[in-house]
Amino acid sequence: MAQGVKVGVVGATGAVGQEFLKILEERRWKLGDLRLFASERSAGKTVRVLGETFSIEAATPSRMEGLDLLFFSAGASVSRELAPQLARKGAVVIDNSSAFRMDPDVPLVVPEVNGQDAFRHRGIVANPNCSTIIMAVPLWPLHRAAGIRRVVVSTYQAVSGAGARAMAELEEELRAHVRGETYEPAVLPYASAERHYPIAFNVIPQVDRFEEAGYTKEEWKMVRETRKIFHEPELAVTATTVRVPVLRSHSESINVELARPLSAEEARALLREAPGVEVVDDPERQRYPMPLEWSGKDAVAVGRIREDLSRPGALNLWAVGDQIRKGAALNAVQIAQVLGLLA
Amino acid sequence: MAQGVKVGVVGATGAVGQEFLKILEERRWKLGDLRLFASERSAGKTVRVLGETFSIEAATPSRMEGLDLLFFSAGASVSRELAPQLARKGAVVIDNSSAFRMDPDVPLVVPEVNGQDAFRHRGIVANPNCSTIIMAVPLWPLHRAAGIRRVVVSTYQAVSGAGARAMAELEEELRAHVRGETYEPAVLPYASAERHYPIAFNVIPQVDRFEEAGYTKEEWKMVRETRKIFHEPELAVTATTVRVPVLRSHSESINVELARPLSAEEARALLREAPGVEVVDDPERQRYPMPLEWSGKDAVAVGRIREDLSRPGALNLWAVGDQIRKGAALNAVQIAQVLGLLA
Repeated sequence: MAQGVKVGVVGATGAVGQEFLKILEERRWKLGDLRLFASERSAGKTVRVLGETFSIEAATPSRMEGLDLLFFSAGASVSRELAPQLARKGAVVIDNSSAFRMDPDVPLVVPEVNGQDAFRHRGIVANPNCSTIIMAVPLWPLHRAAGIRRVVVSTYQAVSGAGARAMAELEEELRAHVRGETYEPAVLPYASAERHYPIAFNVIPQVDRFEEAGYTKEEWKMVRETRKIFHEPELAVTATTVRVPVLRSHSESINVELARPLSAEEARALLREAPGVEVVDDPERQRYPMPLEWSGKDAVAVGRIREDLSRPGALNLWAVGDQIRKGAALNAVQIAQVLGLLA
Repeated sequence: MAQGVKVGVVGATGAVGQEFLKILEERRWKLGDLRLFASERSAGKTVRVLGETFSIEAATPSRMEGLDLLFFSAGASVSRELAPQLARKGAVVIDNSSAFRMDPDVPLVVPEVNGQDAFRHRGIVANPNCSTIIMAVPLWPLHRAAGIRRVVVSTYQAVSGAGARAMAELEEELRAHVRGETYEPAVLPYASAERHYPIAFNVIPQVDRFEEAGYTKEEWKMVRETRKIFHEPELAVTATTVRVPVLRSHSESINVELARPLSAEEARALLREAPGVEVVDDPERQRYPMPLEWSGKDAVAVGRIREDLSRPGALNLWAVGDQIRKGAALNAVQIAQVLGLLA
């Protein structure tokens, strides 16, 4: 099936959709068809992919009939409306929205962790939240080897996680600062929020809306999605998610307590062998992962691997991943590869 | 003694020295004398304070004779050379450098925590590291009420912590970005480092040089200084210190495990009553502390106070403090007030 697969990208004009297309170009797969969809507003625009010009079509179920594999990245409401219909007609939908992630009938997959779960799909496979993926990839080998007891994570998230408008907002705020002008923020922490705050020269300890117990939706995603991906419904995870003035790539400060203590050197050795991880950890040469130099890369970079001297069996790590690539588009492409739909 | 006290400020041209002078102006204390010192290079420059013009003098012991109270903020080597001589001659030195902080004969003081320790001085009182102060102020009331078992902290530190040159570097990097030019960083993570990295659109997980066990000097300061200030030589603290593209005010994501569980509401009530703390914590109105709006304020702001559902008795907090003010100059002024030298 991999040869000649008919692919649709829903949300093709967004940051994640564009990254999908970039990966399709890089991989040079022979597709049976490629169709690009977006909102009514973008319909008719053209995009160059693989040396060809594609017209963006409005995302309607009738137009998507006959496609084998659909990547959805157009928001939860579009996914909720269209994905089940397409799945019923035999298509495989890999959905980057939060719509189905916690649905017990939908696998939630990070290929390096639980690729086999993808085969249990009933037409829809969910792609996890970007911060969750970037944490799950390096924690999984530690969990396998030593059993995670608890995770405390604080994030340093790029504005691209809030979309192209948030990236433009950071740029505009900085331009206004350089010109000595003021700029009224309208996007962050999220577009429909009651209050908006500047991100230039600032740090906003809110990613997405507040939910129960004082945690944000993003923080709950990191807790609940990690439990589902790891098949550990009681895994102890607590998160503080924070937006920083970085354009792309998320960073995470992770403290992990293990049932069986690992030395920093043992953890480093495990991570060096782990799929999807690149260890960048040489304090003497000041080598550690940073978001500015990690954008565009496939692996999750891990450094600052240290034994936590405050508690036996605990480690500190610093992980950086391109949240548009491994945190979204690449992970979805890898799910399709696991299923043999792209090879 | 408070009336007519003769004050010297060593490092008067630096960011912390300038903030000292600003606080002296705000408080309108009647001083017996005010003398400003800096390096040979700055000697002869003039500064306006309290409506008068002051000449900057080169910092030599002979010039400082006869002064009662000296604020030092000119780096550890200047403090090491000059402070003991002045102390022997009867002056009180409040030292903002790291030179004497861990000296068992020198009290290390956060007035809201261990003000009484200041009276045990033998001429020198040390002012803690800025990140330590911002963490210690809100943790102390929790420790008093419920006994801290362990702290996991990740910082989001402003460039001003690395001095005026680092602030200029962030501005220059952003100007270059807006003009489409490149800029070669030369200051961060610290000026004498082998490698320098951009901070604009980046996050650098290194503050100060690396020391033992893979931790930086800044991380060790947060561990060891907190233990000394709290009189808890075994207090379990682990830190990851990170520089972010913010000009001023540090933020800290703090996870604290307590011997006696506190609800988020109990913790909030304790913190509302605590000296030096301002609770800014209303998720429904999106109220939480942010560095951009906290610069110039005296208190440490605390928000995002949540029960950590991953471990009974643990809490998550988000603290923001102006590290030049409460993290340095103001704390030093408060130490002089405790000692009755300024009133």
